[in-house]
Amino acid sequence: MRAVLLAAGEGKRLRPFFQGPKPLMHLLGLSLLERNILTMRDCGIKEFIIVTGCYDEEIREFLGKGDSLGVSLKYLHNSAWKLGNGVSAYAFHREYRNGEKFILMMCDHIFEPKVVKSFITAAEKLAEGEVLLAADKRLEKVWDLEECTKIKAETNKGLYLGKNLTEYNAVDCGLFIGTKALLNSLAEAIAEKKYNLTDGVNRLAEKGKLKLHFVEGFWIDVDDLPSLKEAEKMLLKSLIPPKDGLISKWINRRFSLRLTKILASTSITPNQITLISFFLCLASAWCFAVVSPFWGGLLAQLSSIIDGVDGEIARLKFLKSNYGALFDAILDRYGDFAIVIGMTYAWFSGTGGVFALLVGLVALAGMPMSMLFKEKFKAISGKQFIPEDYDGVFRFVPANRDGRLLLIMLGGVFNLLPFTLILLAVISHFQTLMRLVKVGNQLQ
Amino acid sequence: MRAVLLAAGEGKRLRPFFQGPKPLMHLLGLSLLERNILTMRDCGIKEFIIVTGCYDEEIREFLGKGDSLGVSLKYLHNSAWKLGNGVSAYAFHREYRNGEKFILMMCDHIFEPKVVKSFITAAEKLAEGEVLLAADKRLEKVWDLEECTKIKAETNKGLYLGKNLTEYNAVDCGLFIGTKALLNSLAEAIAEKKYNLTDGVNRLAEKGKLKLHFVEGFWIDVDDLPSLKEAEKMLLKSLIPPKDGLISKWINRRFSLRLTKILASTSITPNQITLISFFLCLASAWCFAVVSPFWGGLLAQLSSIIDGVDGEIARLKFLKSNYGALFDAILDRYGDFAIVIGMTYAWFSGTGGVFALLVGLVALAGMPMSMLFKEKFKAISGKQFIPEDYDGVFRFVPANRDGRLLLIMLGGVFNLLPFTLILLAVISHFQTLMRLVKVGNQLQ
Repeated sequence: MRAVLLAAGEGKRLRPFFQGPKPLMHLLGLSLLERNILTMRDCGIKEFIIVTGCYDEEIREFLGKGDSLGVSLKYLHNSAWKLGNGVSAYAFHREYRNGEKFILMMCDHIFEPKVVKSFITAAEKLAEGEVLLAADKRLEKVWDLEECTKIKAETNKGLYLGKNLTEYNAVDCGLFIGTKALLNSLAEAIAEKKYNLTDGVNRLAEKGKLKLHFVEGFWIDVDDLPSLKEAEKMLLKSLIPPKDGLISKWINRRFSLRLTKILASTSITPNQITLISFFLCLASAWCFAVVSPFWGGLLAQLSSIIDGVDGEIARLKFLKSNYGALFDAILDRYGDFAIVIGMTYAWFSGTGGVFALLVGLVALAGMPMSMLFKEKFKAISGKQFIPEDYDGVFRFVPANRDGRLLLIMLGGVFNLLPFTLILLAVISHFQTLMRLVKVGNQLQ
Repeated sequence: MRAVLLAAGEGKRLRPFFQGPKPLMHLLGLSLLERNILTMRDCGIKEFIIVTGCYDEEIREFLGKGDSLGVSLKYLHNSAWKLGNGVSAYAFHREYRNGEKFILMMCDHIFEPKVVKSFITAAEKLAEGEVLLAADKRLEKVWDLEECTKIKAETNKGLYLGKNLTEYNAVDCGLFIGTKALLNSLAEAIAEKKYNLTDGVNRLAEKGKLKLHFVEGFWIDVDDLPSLKEAEKMLLKSLIPPKDGLISKWINRRFSLRLTKILASTSITPNQITLISFFLCLASAWCFAVVSPFWGGLLAQLSSIIDGVDGEIARLKFLKSNYGALFDAILDRYGDFAIVIGMTYAWFSGTGGVFALLVGLVALAGMPMSMLFKEKFKAISGKQFIPEDYDGVFRFVPANRDGRLLLIMLGGVFNLLPFTLILLAVISHFQTLMRLVKVGNQLQ
């Protein structure tokens, strides 16, 4: 399937804050247009037609043929863009291939990737002559409802669309699966000097040919500064993965998301952030061993926070890679090892006792067990190990990485190294034993 | 699909060595009949019809309704079993459901599971009125060729079958996918007083309705003592998994397979063997720390050998479980940790130095890295990490568990604990680094 992106408008309402073409306005490191292209690329779409208007040259120059995004881009210029977005959408008829279904998206609408994914899946069942429109009936969650195009709907059929409807039960998300029928309707509307997309779509609705797909996730029409801020907020919020531990969810993400917001606009890569997090662990280990446990503890926690940023940047900027996941997992283990070795060395230097040696060894052995268990579980069951689902009350034991590094921070700041090492040793092996019992029962 | 197992014969040729009914003769912990049922159960077959003759009661009594095997068993008694196996196969017509395809297997033939799996897959394409026969054209690999039923074949069609053919290019493995056509042919043959399965099958071959599926794997007709011994040998050989490291493949399996051969006839479970292997690690650690490195080393290697037996027994007796795999993986790590802690303690007790402490910690950290890397690799790529495919020349570095425990054995026997710990530390982290570089390049 090919995708058509409407990027013809002027973007007047954002003028006070941004001077360039609105489709190229950056939001967390990517222009609106790039983000939409990459969202669809992750759904398997590889060919894009961009309909330009006001800023034809600037857009072509910025994106080129799409090589850097790993897709193929084609441009159609609509010189009559001022008339309305129906004319821009209709411009695609020059490129249309008989029988094809296409995605039609407004370039200034931002969608959570899963929304686009499920929309495209729903398109498979669309019959010839019908058009599918993404609609949101969770009206209380819609941003700036007043500005939205409303839909009067009956189950999953659109009856009528309009900005000023008083009776409506959903709103238009600006995302379509178009067929020849849509282009024909637009042509008819334009012939009657009705130039908006809604005019064409309403003709289909009258014939009962407008199907609705109700979205379950966030989307927004980026139109002005408040909506831009909201889009930023929602995108950042969507970066928290379900597998997060409690400390990570309630403490680390508050800081890491802020860092991600700042770093998104730089060219730093996720693997570089992974390396920074690792070096902070080494610095923490060095501080524990030689300088001061206070700084060791703080650096460990800082590393823990930054350990979240690599994944956030990867998801936010579509830079996820298998190698990145592997690199991160291995370096995290080495970071853990370094810190525990630093702490053990510090304790041992003070006392020289065999007890410090044994506790250090046992604590060290506990470090990789949480990940080992989770990965093995995934390999044999095919399911991700979600602590909240499987650990029961033991999910409150801080034995995952986020919890362990928090304990190390506290142990450093309050200068309680022996106690912290004993605690780490106990909880990490206790967690493994509990998992072996609990998950074991479920697997058998 | 249902399966029909012919278990009607007397098994005369095995009389000198075994007095009971041949289908119940045990081979590596399972009777021939049980092994065939379980092999097919793993291919998704859940309903079985067993045609009995000579030993009707004994077989019914032994297997019951199949509850203990997790399948459903039905029995058909053929009182005229002495006439020939065609009459036994034909007995199934009483149970036949219109339009059904069924598997027909001689209960005294033993197959490597993958042979049966690919045969059943091939059956999907079989047309109405045709019969599919598993055949082997690797004549040099066929056991006791003289006794086999030969096939004159043209590409994948059987033209004629017979024990005394002089011109032939494959042999009959005694495994069919039958249809109504097979039962009809058998009925015709029996009406002409031709009572062998081959007589019925030849009628189909004449009409061009006998399709052949050529097997790629071991199978054998267990008829006498030498073939029983051969079956045992081949079954044991098939237990070596492709992911085996070099030490395991060339040293440990020689011993573990012998142990498996002995233990197969007991009721010991794979998880019990996992526990024994783990306790041997603890004993090894204790010997290293307190008694003598010599015994520590030997016990470590013994544990390594027994660590192969749990999986062998599980595969051999169809006792594989997800929990078993998880339990084994976690206990192996704890076994490793215990031994390295024991060795470090021994070294440290002698010298008391910080160097022993640091080397011990670094060596301990290296222990889980091989598994961690492999599991993470599998989770993100979906592929099993096979050292021979991915490690290149570094597969000769003994940093997988089999290699590490061999080094520990040598270090113990020759009393070189410090050197062994340094070596373990170096090779385990070196291997991880190399994998990160090598596999990394392939994943990116």
